Amino acid sequence: MKQDTDLLSQAIALAYANIRQGGRPFGALVVKDGEIIAQGVNEVVQTNDPTAHAELMAIRAASKQLGSASLAGCSVFASGHPCPMCMGAMRLAGVKAVTYAYSNEDGDPFGLSTAEIYADLAKPLSQQSMTIRHVPTRLAGQPDLYAHWKHHQ
Amino acid sequence: MKQDTDLLSQAIALAYANIRQGGRPFGALVVKDGEIIAQGVNEVVQTNDPTAHAELMAIRAASKQLGSASLAGCSVFASGHPCPMCMGAMRLAGVKAVTYAYSNEDGDPFGLSTAEIYADLAKPLSQQSMTIRHVPTRLAGQPDLYAHWKHHQ
Repeated sequence: MKQDTDLLSQAIALAYANIRQGGRPFGALVVKDGEIIAQGVNEVVQTNDPTAHAELMAIRAASKQLGSASLAGCSVFASGHPCPMCMGAMRLAGVKAVTYAYSNEDGDPFGLSTAEIYADLAKPLSQQSMTIRHVPTRLAGQPDLYAHWKHHQ
Repeated sequence: MKQDTDLLSQAIALAYANIRQGGRPFGALVVKDGEIIAQGVNEVVQTNDPTAHAELMAIRAASKQLGSASLAGCSVFASGHPCPMCMGAMRLAGVKAVTYAYSNEDGDPFGLSTAEIYADLAKPLSQQSMTIRHVPTRLAGQPDLYAHWKHHQ
């Protein structure tokens, strides 16, 4: 089984390679049973997709590889500290562990830290930078949306 | 300009339609200058992609539509309370506001709440359900990864 530092080095090597492609310096691997089953790099610049982070791309590739939305038993190795979106995605997928090499402190001088977004998301909803509103709305004459879904399972 | 409840009703209608496709009961719209520029539904079941939430799909479609990773000035209208991944994605994209119709409390009896994931992510890192480790690792003989990237900008 590969060592953690070997896997992190491979994720970092992907990040260096992505710089050569005009991309941002982030790479990630998904590992299961000691084997790399998927990888990803940050493709935001190349694709204009703000969700195309290395970890998200690796998760998507891994779920395709496994034919399952569950990555239970999988670990992620990322070159940099995962952002809140990627941290949330790993939870949804059931990833058991994430290990990263470069911290938000390392990234801060270069504008590559997501610490500010973490801090903002930790505030009460009314104090966050993005307006978040709950407007209870229902379609008239329809069964309850969630009960309707449950009935179809 | 459309009313919030009209836009939410359209997002909910997408969710109903997605149930008929075998999908989960979630739909979302991206709105700019009062016009719907993109939409998405939850395609996790259909694609096995754990990141294919309605909001994420709508964000990806909107960025494609605009040819930009920035959704500054855009608002999202979602049938249900956005999960932590989607909330993070909206921040990354610079979405200014999100409005949703069904709450996590509405979803809880049907297993459709992400309140537990929010609670877990709010804990200190060492107490969260997913193991998170920082293992500072550097590639020998290489310039600093982030400085190297900055130099290429």
